[in-house]
Amino acid sequence: MMYALIMAGGRGARFWPRSRRAFPKQCVAIGGPDSLIRQTVDRLAPMISPEHILVITGPDMVDAIAAQLPDLPAENILVEPQGRNTAPCVGWGAVEVARRGGEDAVMMVLPADHVITAPEILRDSLAGAAAAAVETGALVTLGITPTHPETGYGYLELGDEAGQWAGQSLRVVSRFQEKPDATTAAQYVASGRHLWNAGMFVFTAGAVLSAFAAHLPRSAVALRRIAADPGSLAEAWGELEATSIDFGIMERVDNILTAPCDPGWSDVGSWSAAGALLPEDAGGRGETLRTLSIDAADNITYAPGKVVALIGVSGLAVVDADDALLVMDASRAQEVRDIVTMLETTGLPHLT
Amino acid sequence: MMYALIMAGGRGARFWPRSRRAFPKQCVAIGGPDSLIRQTVDRLAPMISPEHILVITGPDMVDAIAAQLPDLPAENILVEPQGRNTAPCVGWGAVEVARRGGEDAVMMVLPADHVITAPEILRDSLAGAAAAAVETGALVTLGITPTHPETGYGYLELGDEAGQWAGQSLRVVSRFQEKPDATTAAQYVASGRHLWNAGMFVFTAGAVLSAFAAHLPRSAVALRRIAADPGSLAEAWGELEATSIDFGIMERVDNILTAPCDPGWSDVGSWSAAGALLPEDAGGRGETLRTLSIDAADNITYAPGKVVALIGVSGLAVVDADDALLVMDASRAQEVRDIVTMLETTGLPHLT
Repeated sequence: MMYALIMAGGRGARFWPRSRRAFPKQCVAIGGPDSLIRQTVDRLAPMISPEHILVITGPDMVDAIAAQLPDLPAENILVEPQGRNTAPCVGWGAVEVARRGGEDAVMMVLPADHVITAPEILRDSLAGAAAAAVETGALVTLGITPTHPETGYGYLELGDEAGQWAGQSLRVVSRFQEKPDATTAAQYVASGRHLWNAGMFVFTAGAVLSAFAAHLPRSAVALRRIAADPGSLAEAWGELEATSIDFGIMERVDNILTAPCDPGWSDVGSWSAAGALLPEDAGGRGETLRTLSIDAADNITYAPGKVVALIGVSGLAVVDADDALLVMDASRAQEVRDIVTMLETTGLPHLT
Repeated sequence: MMYALIMAGGRGARFWPRSRRAFPKQCVAIGGPDSLIRQTVDRLAPMISPEHILVITGPDMVDAIAAQLPDLPAENILVEPQGRNTAPCVGWGAVEVARRGGEDAVMMVLPADHVITAPEILRDSLAGAAAAAVETGALVTLGITPTHPETGYGYLELGDEAGQWAGQSLRVVSRFQEKPDATTAAQYVASGRHLWNAGMFVFTAGAVLSAFAAHLPRSAVALRRIAADPGSLAEAWGELEATSIDFGIMERVDNILTAPCDPGWSDVGSWSAAGALLPEDAGGRGETLRTLSIDAADNITYAPGKVVALIGVSGLAVVDADDALLVMDASRAQEVRDIVTMLETTGLPHLT
């Protein structure tokens, strides 16, 4: 029995003005006509039906998320009482999967807001990871073949061959590496022995709950309380250790396996990264009704339904929303978060 | 008896995307909360009541113009059958003024889409020009003291003192000068004997109709036909010579007078010129709900009601509309016309 747990609690402030507290990044359509979370569910369709897909999100954004996923049963949308990082989400998800499918059910933990351009490759890797997780009881993480020395991601260092499952060769993870500096990142890519940690995990519900018992025992107690009495969630939630699944569980467990793959993955971390996924147009790349330009190149424009005219500009990112407009040097796309902070502190929090 | 004829037939393509065929530049609010044509009528209020203000415009834009001027009687809005330059407009306006107020009535011909920051100075000059026009029968043009060697305007070369009327010293215009090159413009400004021709004229209806008879006799015949039978307008309009009032009349008449003045005039010829009239904000100058910026300066933003965020950009003009967005190097603001042409020729004429 296979389940997916889609992690949809992030706010995506860097995607302002299209992302908002009540309409987070995963609800924005990038790299296609559908929202990122809709794309995430749809790429699972050949292997997991909507009845077996759980989504965990926050109370602010649950309405927008549910509107994107009318095919999911209402009880499959888990609303965390408040954000306490990813370990509590995975723990609660495991309790729910075990309750519905038993402790031997496989769960795939997947981010809601990434883009995958080759979903069939992803599904093959997930199938291999699932088979390994069932047969060995291991926790499995997907590892993405790096295309450049990115300093914004964590890396997996590869160990021995672990075997083949469902046609996929899995490897042991010898170490999790934090986000490296540029020199180290270049060494990782050159070594051929490092993969990006993309935050996609596969294990049985029982295996990850055992890992909680071993490495986050206080959380394990709270999870057993939630399992015994779902009505205790609000209270028990505060007892779950507020840490990430990577740091709290994956990095502490021996014998983690990884399924290496290259599914055209992007975490779409900023408008600059999103630009690479948009169609080419007269001014660079964009999602607009039409882009007209005079001496304009290498711009990113996101203004669905609008005509955009560019004259004599390059290297910009331009993002339009009904009530707000962002124009920036595309190389400074990380600073959108600072604009969101400025809005919060200068009397315009309703626009964040 | 004093009348005004406000020339409101221009399209203002350089103000796209805020200006449209059916919503021309004169309907856009710049340099204040009101549209340019509303500002034009309001600055006349102390000297001319709405009953004596005529507006001439085209059939495409008459609804938008009338909506701006609910205080004007409907019969004061003259709809030209088609655009044939400014001489026919002034001729028909003179016929209407003569019909309503007699041939001795004074008419002030004023553009609908300019900004005047010192309206009391303008009114003083208009009062002097009107007194001179009544007493001498001369055609009078307002001359604006030049502030810089502008190559985009025509110039008036000053001749002798003509006398004082209503406290204003008027001069004879010795010559009309076409738009000069940069060197000549610098000489004009240094000479102290040249003023900008701002397209604002004052004369009696009878005086300008006599000038039509002398210099555009074919037009004069058509105007007499319209005067005798207003129902003949549509047919007679095609017989009026399609030329400008400057070239067809003013430059051919001897003894033109000018009332020099410095009323803080701008013809607001482009978004770049409009920028100078907008309030200072965090990113340069703008008309927005709020502008937030990080390392941004010297930008012009026009997005009324929206928050605009600028990161690491300078020297841009950003203009937002419901269905279109313009982002350009502000120094290339003249090229907006080319964008409008591109829209017309690439299947999007409804956006022009």
